[in-house]
Amino acid sequence: MLKEACRVIQQVREKKPLVHAITNYVTVNDCANILLGFGASPAMVEIIEEVEGFTAIAQSLYINIGTLAGEQKSSILLAAARASELHIPVVIDPVGVGAIPSRADYVLNLLKNYNISIVKGNLGEIKVLAGLDASVRGVDSIDDGAGAVDACRTLAEKYNTVVVASGVQDIISDGKRVALVDNGTSLLSLITGSGCMLGALAAAAAAVEKEDFLKAAATAVLAMGLSGETAAGLLSGEVLPGTFRIKLFDQIYSLSEQVILEKGKLSWL
Amino acid sequence: MLKEACRVIQQVREKKPLVHAITNYVTVNDCANILLGFGASPAMVEIIEEVEGFTAIAQSLYINIGTLAGEQKSSILLAAARASELHIPVVIDPVGVGAIPSRADYVLNLLKNYNISIVKGNLGEIKVLAGLDASVRGVDSIDDGAGAVDACRTLAEKYNTVVVASGVQDIISDGKRVALVDNGTSLLSLITGSGCMLGALAAAAAAVEKEDFLKAAATAVLAMGLSGETAAGLLSGEVLPGTFRIKLFDQIYSLSEQVILEKGKLSWL
Amino acid sequence: MLKEACRVIQQVREKKPLVHAITNYVTVNDCANILLGFGASPAMVEIIEEVEGFTAIAQSLYINIGTLAGEQKSSILLAAARASELHIPVVIDPVGVGAIPSRADYVLNLLKNYNISIVKGNLGEIKVLAGLDASVRGVDSIDDGAGAVDACRTLAEKYNTVVVASGVQDIISDGKRVALVDNGTSLLSLITGSGCMLGALAAAAAAVEKEDFLKAAATAVLAMGLSGETAAGLLSGEVLPGTFRIKLFDQIYSLSEQVILEKGKLSWL
Repeated sequence: MLKEACRVIQQVREKKPLVHAITNYVTVNDCANILLGFGASPAMVEIIEEVEGFTAIAQSLYINIGTLAGEQKSSILLAAARASELHIPVVIDPVGVGAIPSRADYVLNLLKNYNISIVKGNLGEIKVLAGLDASVRGVDSIDDGAGAVDACRTLAEKYNTVVVASGVQDIISDGKRVALVDNGTSLLSLITGSGCMLGALAAAAAAVEKEDFLKAAATAVLAMGLSGETAAGLLSGEVLPGTFRIKLFDQIYSLSEQVILEKGKLSWL
Repeated sequence: MLKEACRVIQQVREKKPLVHAITNYVTVNDCANILLGFGASPAMVEIIEEVEGFTAIAQSLYINIGTLAGEQKSSILLAAARASELHIPVVIDPVGVGAIPSRADYVLNLLKNYNISIVKGNLGEIKVLAGLDASVRGVDSIDDGAGAVDACRTLAEKYNTVVVASGVQDIISDGKRVALVDNGTSLLSLITGSGCMLGALAAAAAAVEKEDFLKAAATAVLAMGLSGETAAGLLSGEVLPGTFRIKLFDQIYSLSEQVILEKGKLSWL
Repeated sequence: MLKEACRVIQQVREKKPLVHAITNYVTVNDCANILLGFGASPAMVEIIEEVEGFTAIAQSLYINIGTLAGEQKSSILLAAARASELHIPVVIDPVGVGAIPSRADYVLNLLKNYNISIVKGNLGEIKVLAGLDASVRGVDSIDDGAGAVDACRTLAEKYNTVVVASGVQDIISDGKRVALVDNGTSLLSLITGSGCMLGALAAAAAAVEKEDFLKAAATAVLAMGLSGETAAGLLSGEVLPGTFRIKLFDQIYSLSEQVILEKGKLSWL
């Protein structure tokens, strides 16, 4: 899988896929910058009169429900419908479904009615979508991880999608296969947007890897985790969240095949 | 007070309070990152159907009227009402009340009708709310400071709240006591969001120090001023606003008891 | 022109013009920070009840249609009308007119009905507004540049405005004169917001140089290009988009007359 992740990243850099993002206004700038650093071409288009036309020219759609302000609640439905129709990959980031029950209904409705390629949440969010109890603090997961793999597998199988649950160990499943990734750094939890950026990268990867969305999702998880590790490694052991965040943008651009192959820690369950 | 500020910061780091923020879209990312660095758990939730339920699970509410876009004007009222009802601390940042008269009415209405723990503005904004003349340039204060202490005291007393007026010297008053803080750096005025971030920190501090909001406010002022000083001190005398901003996020995380006790400059009037 | 650019920058730093910005939520924080670093005083005000009053007290208006969320589509019209009436310089950034046809209509309507001082787009956007075919990828231009100068000249002449087409070589024309600027760095295309920031700087420059908007536009182009070059030069040859972006904010503040005069590459066609 590590070799295949290298190939997917290479494809993103060559094809520069147009990723249509409808996302929260807290971390939207981070999502745009991480997509540019990854080699993709981000565009945030969300007003109702523009959204369907734009989805139609994009190579993938990234939906993040972090704030749902303005017309997003409606335009996300329009974009998801159009993407489904045109077989354009869709990644959903179910921010806040743990703390806000109506959001869970909103996301489950998307999963039921449209072809969703990848659902990327923190573990608390994934558990809630899978119908399980979970521990969350606002938009953050403080879940201990019990039953995590089952939650991912169940949710993926039920909606014929790929599920990513981010955490100390990231879990990726398409309902049958389960991949575990042990890269990353605790510094990622000290900055806002690390989850959103991972979702955005998954959308970029899915744009060039339409055959196997688990592969696309794993590529994004590896890219984020390894870029995070490399960025953290440049801090000489200090915990500097601001500097780390900037170096993360540097490293996603610089991420090399060598680092992926040597340091990637992906295992199959 | 310096020792008590240390204790408040320690409490934030231990309890990781959930801070519900309804804020402007210009500096929202900065507010989220500074709250994470400070040890709190930020969440931006503002659409009408979600806002009251979320306030109810938060440990404090941060209201910033910098842009008031979308449903914010209504949802802020709902959130403030719910927070008042549940005795959840509320911090208001009255951005732009100096330049936009209708905003002053909006904020005064909040002060009249709800329990507002802390009002944090620049000096021009505080003077306008206190019914005095003030010099402002857009959302910035260019006031010379005459009558500043009286403005803070009067406003605090009138609405039974704590007032923070940020400036070269920060003033904090609950209507009776007046604390002056002489920390900080002129670099803070070269980046956007330093005022907003201070307000966000005050909300985090108020979440864990509900007995004495002056103490919470002073903690936030000291934390911001000292982190700013330390960050500026790392620039070797150069004026580098971009680098300073990143180091500010580093330093808020690293802020130590020793720095607070040795470098904090708080005096009582 | 290089000497005149120095004078314009000096004026911005002395007068600290209030720049009223109605812009997209993706790069709004970058626009605010670059304006502060340049010496201007940014304020983002966009709700309908506030917008006209605020335009009236501003020294220039920056309109960027990158997201057009909420009330922006209406409030931009109100702000542009008020600015036209009061002879306040207006800069338009026609983000996305290449990919979203309705946006081109929206911008052409602004150009027809109001006094627009400067239109700043990437080459693809400028060509579309000039009625020519162009190659775009989402909000990015991938146009090869054929016919670029004619597009700028034609558009500027038709609407009695100044046109800036950003690209490897930046083109600035008022319909008669054509200036070419060969500063900048490819790193600017690896971060989001470099185009938006250029537009914001043009608005700051236009606020203090109302006699000749070509001069104002050229100043902004030189400032952005040279700050980008200096920032890139600090990276020891590495491609580090995150670090570059932060150093760009540092360098816009530090930009000296000496650098402009020695390294500015502006030629007249």
